Amino acid sequence: MSESENVIRLYYKNVTADVVGPDHGLTEDELNEAREQIRQIVPDIEEERSRGEHRYRDLPYDEEMLRRVQAACDARRQGCETLVVCGIGGSALGNIALQTALNPYTYNLLPPAKRGGPRLFVMDNVDPMQFGALLDLIEDDLDSTLFNVISKSGETAETAAQFLIVRDMLKQRLGPSGPKDKILVTTDAAKGTMRQIVDAEGYESLSVPDGVGGRFSVLSAVGLFSAGMCGIDVAGLLKGAAAMDERVKVPTLDENPAALIAAIHTQMYHRNKRLHVMMPYSYHLKDLADWYRQLWAESLGKQKSKFKMGVFVGPTPINALGATDQHSQVQLYREGPNDKVFTLLAVERFDRQVSIPAADAVVDDMSYLGEQEMGTLLNNERIATEQALITSKRPTLSIRFPSITAETVGQFIYLYEAATTIAGRLLGINAYDQPAVELGKQYTFALMGRTGFEDTAKELRAKLGDVGKYLV
Amino acid sequence: MSESENVIRLYYKNVTADVVGPDHGLTEDELNEAREQIRQIVPDIEEERSRGEHRYRDLPYDEEMLRRVQAACDARRQGCETLVVCGIGGSALGNIALQTALNPYTYNLLPPAKRGGPRLFVMDNVDPMQFGALLDLIEDDLDSTLFNVISKSGETAETAAQFLIVRDMLKQRLGPSGPKDKILVTTDAAKGTMRQIVDAEGYESLSVPDGVGGRFSVLSAVGLFSAGMCGIDVAGLLKGAAAMDERVKVPTLDENPAALIAAIHTQMYHRNKRLHVMMPYSYHLKDLADWYRQLWAESLGKQKSKFKMGVFVGPTPINALGATDQHSQVQLYREGPNDKVFTLLAVERFDRQVSIPAADAVVDDMSYLGEQEMGTLLNNERIATEQALITSKRPTLSIRFPSITAETVGQFIYLYEAATTIAGRLLGINAYDQPAVELGKQYTFALMGRTGFEDTAKELRAKLGDVGKYLV
Repeated sequence: MSESENVIRLYYKNVTADVVGPDHGLTEDELNEAREQIRQIVPDIEEERSRGEHRYRDLPYDEEMLRRVQAACDARRQGCETLVVCGIGGSALGNIALQTALNPYTYNLLPPAKRGGPRLFVMDNVDPMQFGALLDLIEDDLDSTLFNVISKSGETAETAAQFLIVRDMLKQRLGPSGPKDKILVTTDAAKGTMRQIVDAEGYESLSVPDGVGGRFSVLSAVGLFSAGMCGIDVAGLLKGAAAMDERVKVPTLDENPAALIAAIHTQMYHRNKRLHVMMPYSYHLKDLADWYRQLWAESLGKQKSKFKMGVFVGPTPINALGATDQHSQVQLYREGPNDKVFTLLAVERFDRQVSIPAADAVVDDMSYLGEQEMGTLLNNERIATEQALITSKRPTLSIRFPSITAETVGQFIYLYEAATTIAGRLLGINAYDQPAVELGKQYTFALMGRTGFEDTAKELRAKLGDVGKYLV
Repeated sequence: MSESENVIRLYYKNVTADVVGPDHGLTEDELNEAREQIRQIVPDIEEERSRGEHRYRDLPYDEEMLRRVQAACDARRQGCETLVVCGIGGSALGNIALQTALNPYTYNLLPPAKRGGPRLFVMDNVDPMQFGALLDLIEDDLDSTLFNVISKSGETAETAAQFLIVRDMLKQRLGPSGPKDKILVTTDAAKGTMRQIVDAEGYESLSVPDGVGGRFSVLSAVGLFSAGMCGIDVAGLLKGAAAMDERVKVPTLDENPAALIAAIHTQMYHRNKRLHVMMPYSYHLKDLADWYRQLWAESLGKQKSKFKMGVFVGPTPINALGATDQHSQVQLYREGPNDKVFTLLAVERFDRQVSIPAADAVVDDMSYLGEQEMGTLLNNERIATEQALITSKRPTLSIRFPSITAETVGQFIYLYEAATTIAGRLLGINAYDQPAVELGKQYTFALMGRTGFEDTAKELRAKLGDVGKYLV
């Protein structure tokens, strides 16, 4: 692909031994080992894909899904001033990331005519002060509000609680048909608690695709409905993802950016660089780093390896923000333990320019900034930080966005999803399950008094008794 | 102090060997060692304080500062609909944390009569798309906008760029006196670039106190002016901090929560638990965790130790959010490497209740949630997660807020500041400098063409030349 195309690029020279030295950088031997592994793994994944595995990989080609999402948006956009997404984890992080990436910083504050769609609130918690504040804000405008409840099973306690509250409020305020008119449910197409409720009460619904885990679902109806409602080019997201698919199915390490991301991070993991920092130099990309945080942590943090039992493997993803966190984290990043791999996200052309005016005599000490673009300053801060990091022998990747568009964001999402699958293979773990989340859910059920969890409740209450001298 | 008081508490039983076992929990021997160290360190700090060191510790008693901040707020609040803070790092994180903690989630969206003061935007970056969107939003309302430019020296490139842009825009739109009327500067009382500009152009100003580093400055005019403007009880913040001062100057480990936080985290650091996760179970406390991230990282991440040269010491602070991140990070937290210490922030009474309605037949599977408070669910999620973590032998502290008020937030801030000072002492590093930030600043100056940095620019350009085969 030529440089003139709208294609994101990975730059990885600054993780090599040539730049940061053999103690901290990858050697040619390590890259050769990765080349060998990738030659096997990538075709394996493609073959498994043809047998129905890795189904998130095929979302970019699901035209029926796209058509349904767009039809739902077209039907609902008229008269809708506020959209509230009720979801958590994989049913929220992608929605937030798309909105932050592709709509203005001030979106919810703009008058309707200046927005691409309704105000968007993604409620991914059960904090009564936060949720209550939202209810107070919208209670007189329920007629122009739509709730998108997203839960594959309906078993997620947080989303279930929100749903019960919203459903009741709509009944109270708008009458018996209130919930049906104002709730659109995204859930399993056929089974589960939420699907049963949808069928019983007649809600409009979209499908969470089969075989696609929550953290891989942003390019399905889960992430695309709220995006489409808010004027984001959802077809462009899928087009970008499909373009990236062509690049990440190539079995040659040196040509496959997902394979490079996976191989570099897993090699670094084995060298005790277990903290994987993603630091966008763009406000708009900051929540993609938070989305990545779930993808990387929940996919790769696993006790059991296919190679070795009980390994307790897993890099810790960390999101940071440039230039802001230069004034918060870079002191540690340069002088703390050399236990991190950095990925800086760069934007080459910003869609909005802000010019710094020429300095006069009073502000002469600031004159070096004068008559330059703010974007130039931000990009120079990134280059400066990258160079400062490698001066301290800290391995540093960068991902370069020509500009932030639906297509480049779609490329980025698909790139990291594919990298996660490959990294899981390299670490010998199952990247698609999350067994350790279960216990906390059961404990919550027990503490909330759910039928069937009485023994767990008793066991917990015994543990929670005495705080003794440990409460200071 | 009795339980009925509005006092935050540290609970630390779940970091002890009794709970998580001797491989991962603190033994009585380790606590005894810490008791010994604290008996020495805390009185040393108090003695140094009497000689003028640790000056942030005395901010809660600075009545003159409080009076000036309150007077400035009283003078400026009338007619002010929008307040824009231009600052970064320690000149922004505290401001953001106070606003999120003590004002509603929907604050900027509320009509003026329902807000405690102007809309607040803390612009802590130089992203032209973000800053440009803000300028677009406010350009027709500059008459009712106030800019609070915060920079101790005026040398910070990001804040200088914002200042130049805002100053020029105000001149263009409101005439020659525009900047003077609409900019209030918080800077050094006597010296530096920004103080010279203040003197030359006659801006109203507040002082960044001497001897207080940016990350310890939230309880000075730096953090308090924007808080006071937005209706936050700034006297209450200082009262809470002063109350905590009484607790953290006690030289007995078992009675001093700051000493316990410092000792537990440094002991765990030496046991290779170098990731220190702060996870509030409250939307309102989430940005205090981000504030902590700067405090902990920039203070404790140091190459040079007083005990040993070239140690590259430093825990990596991580902020998470409960219950949200249970669906993102807890899989890793339970099954990944046991390399973390967790601190959950708990709120016992939420100021706003949201009740979950009784379930009916259709939603019977959700009936266990019915007729309970949303806050009960959130707190049970926290307890469940804490129990799940300790089941996996992950050491877990908690900080318990009776409720979120200016006083408890003031206590929390002061608690973690004091803990940072003590942790610095236990790690043998200087907690108050940030030498590694300098190089990136110089590189930025060089790339922006500042006079005096020509050689650095040449050196950088040589390095940045060829991307070769590493751009994929």
